Amino acid sequence: MFDFEIQARSGRARTATFSTPHGTVQTPMFMPVGTQGTVKGITPAELLDVGSQMILGNTYHLMLRPGPDMVAAHGGLPGFTAYPGPFLTDSGGFQVMSLGHMRKITEQGVTFKSHVDGSAVQLTPERSIAVQEALGADIIMAFDECPPFPATREYVKASQERTIRWLERCLNAKTRDDQALFAIVQGSVYEDLREQSVQETLPFNTPGFAIGGLAVGESKEEMYPMVAFTAARLPEGKPRYLMGVGHPEDLVAAIALGVDMFDCVYPTRTGRFGYALTDDGRLNLNSSGPRQQLIPIDPECDCYACRNYTRAYLAHLTRAEEMLSPRMLSLHNIRYLHRLVERARAAIASDTYQSWATTWAERYFKGRIPTWFQQAIAG
Amino acid sequence: MFDFEIQARSGRARTATFSTPHGTVQTPMFMPVGTQGTVKGITPAELLDVGSQMILGNTYHLMLRPGPDMVAAHGGLPGFTAYPGPFLTDSGGFQVMSLGHMRKITEQGVTFKSHVDGSAVQLTPERSIAVQEALGADIIMAFDECPPFPATREYVKASQERTIRWLERCLNAKTRDDQALFAIVQGSVYEDLREQSVQETLPFNTPGFAIGGLAVGESKEEMYPMVAFTAARLPEGKPRYLMGVGHPEDLVAAIALGVDMFDCVYPTRTGRFGYALTDDGRLNLNSSGPRQQLIPIDPECDCYACRNYTRAYLAHLTRAEEMLSPRMLSLHNIRYLHRLVERARAAIASDTYQSWATTWAERYFKGRIPTWFQQAIAG
Repeated sequence: MFDFEIQARSGRARTATFSTPHGTVQTPMFMPVGTQGTVKGITPAELLDVGSQMILGNTYHLMLRPGPDMVAAHGGLPGFTAYPGPFLTDSGGFQVMSLGHMRKITEQGVTFKSHVDGSAVQLTPERSIAVQEALGADIIMAFDECPPFPATREYVKASQERTIRWLERCLNAKTRDDQALFAIVQGSVYEDLREQSVQETLPFNTPGFAIGGLAVGESKEEMYPMVAFTAARLPEGKPRYLMGVGHPEDLVAAIALGVDMFDCVYPTRTGRFGYALTDDGRLNLNSSGPRQQLIPIDPECDCYACRNYTRAYLAHLTRAEEMLSPRMLSLHNIRYLHRLVERARAAIASDTYQSWATTWAERYFKGRIPTWFQQAIAG
Repeated sequence: MFDFEIQARSGRARTATFSTPHGTVQTPMFMPVGTQGTVKGITPAELLDVGSQMILGNTYHLMLRPGPDMVAAHGGLPGFTAYPGPFLTDSGGFQVMSLGHMRKITEQGVTFKSHVDGSAVQLTPERSIAVQEALGADIIMAFDECPPFPATREYVKASQERTIRWLERCLNAKTRDDQALFAIVQGSVYEDLREQSVQETLPFNTPGFAIGGLAVGESKEEMYPMVAFTAARLPEGKPRYLMGVGHPEDLVAAIALGVDMFDCVYPTRTGRFGYALTDDGRLNLNSSGPRQQLIPIDPECDCYACRNYTRAYLAHLTRAEEMLSPRMLSLHNIRYLHRLVERARAAIASDTYQSWATTWAERYFKGRIPTWFQQAIAG
């Protein structure tokens, strides 16, 4: 259980299998986000159909509503949501920072007012683990603080040192053997603090490591050197998870740097706004062009929307504010990211990752590949 | 084509097959409504899966957006919507009355301001048929006026006489042989005007007849005598369509009176509001009870929601305003009405309709079956 077996490498990129109690997944992989116990608008049957392997659940949201006891009464997230495969839950820390009101951080943990009903709630490392054990995901995350961007060196250093102490408390609180707890490296955009965080985190020897504290407002030029620096210092034989990322270009770039796992609300959120992901960039179904186009979003895509509908039809649905539009665009976008990592895995397996990524980027960036991307895929 | 073959009778209820260019349907049947070219939130694959046989499209909405030319460019509604089976389109008359602003009715037709962009639009019998030919449904409806309720005898009489003249113009305007045009009987709640409308409509010998002008605000006690009176005067050998109906109790009652076809937005609309149809009545997923219930909406139902989800989960989605709630409740509610007519057909085939309907109603009305319903199922 929780074996990570690398099957092929191409530069720093690698493809591997990771075994969990609810099934073995292939990395690199993208995890759709099911914040409140559902990937917005999409059924488990559809997730399996488009190639989802693992779903992310948000501890913060599920703790507040419907509460961990109700999820546990269903046998955990698989029973509650009817998605039979592996789950990963975050620790709640990130959402406390972004959604909780009047939050106060102490050594003990975080107190905040619920965004649902305004009630006072305390989240500590011990409570986060207890909730995550009730939710029953295969991978659970250490309770950390993700500092905002920008944050001073002093703030980040103090925060990440507390995060290490919280990691120790998380591991002490953990009682279930069938859940893998991943530690999270912080350090914001300070290379020396990243180094310190890695050095203090690695000894806990968790079955996987996450790269946290990025994609929170910094530029790509600030972010990618940190991904490269951190990923290179994490153990080869364990999965590396870049939290909250990302856009198609982020997946292709970070895979080149040796990242194995991703999650982001982007495909479903941008779908609800009327956008479809393609190899040519983002197609805006709100604009007038697609309303006249009798072709699929993406002729190469095998999702239900692309197999059945024209852009004109989907643009009509979008304009008419029909529910089927966000549903179909979300489905397509999830499929797009799954196909993207499937293509990445094939390129790694044939040791052609850099050339594949370059070809993909030429089209995606319309010939103007940014420097940060070029540097990332150069390894 | 458009053969209506009665297979069994039970009292005045009957079960039959009706053949259309896109397939043969079994009556009695319920048609989900796809107002803007989609049954809200539901895919064609799901409609087929839950037993939909024919989908209703709204001429008024599709004429305004995306326009008949765009639907025709897809080969009509089956190509546009990706639903491969039969369609029925209404004439636009009803929506002009309910949605158009500043409408003016003349002998020529109706002028109104579009609810989409405020532009001035004219709809005439000829224009309605031209649009319905572009939309390409298997069954198209005569352009009529559905008088509001209440309306004076004088108003209804003048209106329905004009509707007869419009029917003649519709038939003269019709050019396609692969579409069946159904005439519509009006008369509001005036028995003598219903009689007059029937007598003036029948000579046109259309392949089916609709009962219009009901379920527009009158009581069940006013409505059902009109359904009984009109249905009894329509030809045995052609389908009878009660427009814009209905609720489960309406289907069971009107089938007893010899009605074959129904349409209504009710299952999807009430689903979007958080309600689920069951043999025990309507379950309110917004209420606190279901939040604690680890059972399906309806243990006897075979829809995706009932096979996979608890009431607690669906109530959680409803409370959290997740898109999957309206989607799943709409799907369940459509399946409920399809199962209801399937059960009705089986009861007719075994000539036990009245006893089946009584048993169904005992549970549905919790022992207090209203008089209008008792009278309807007594035939």
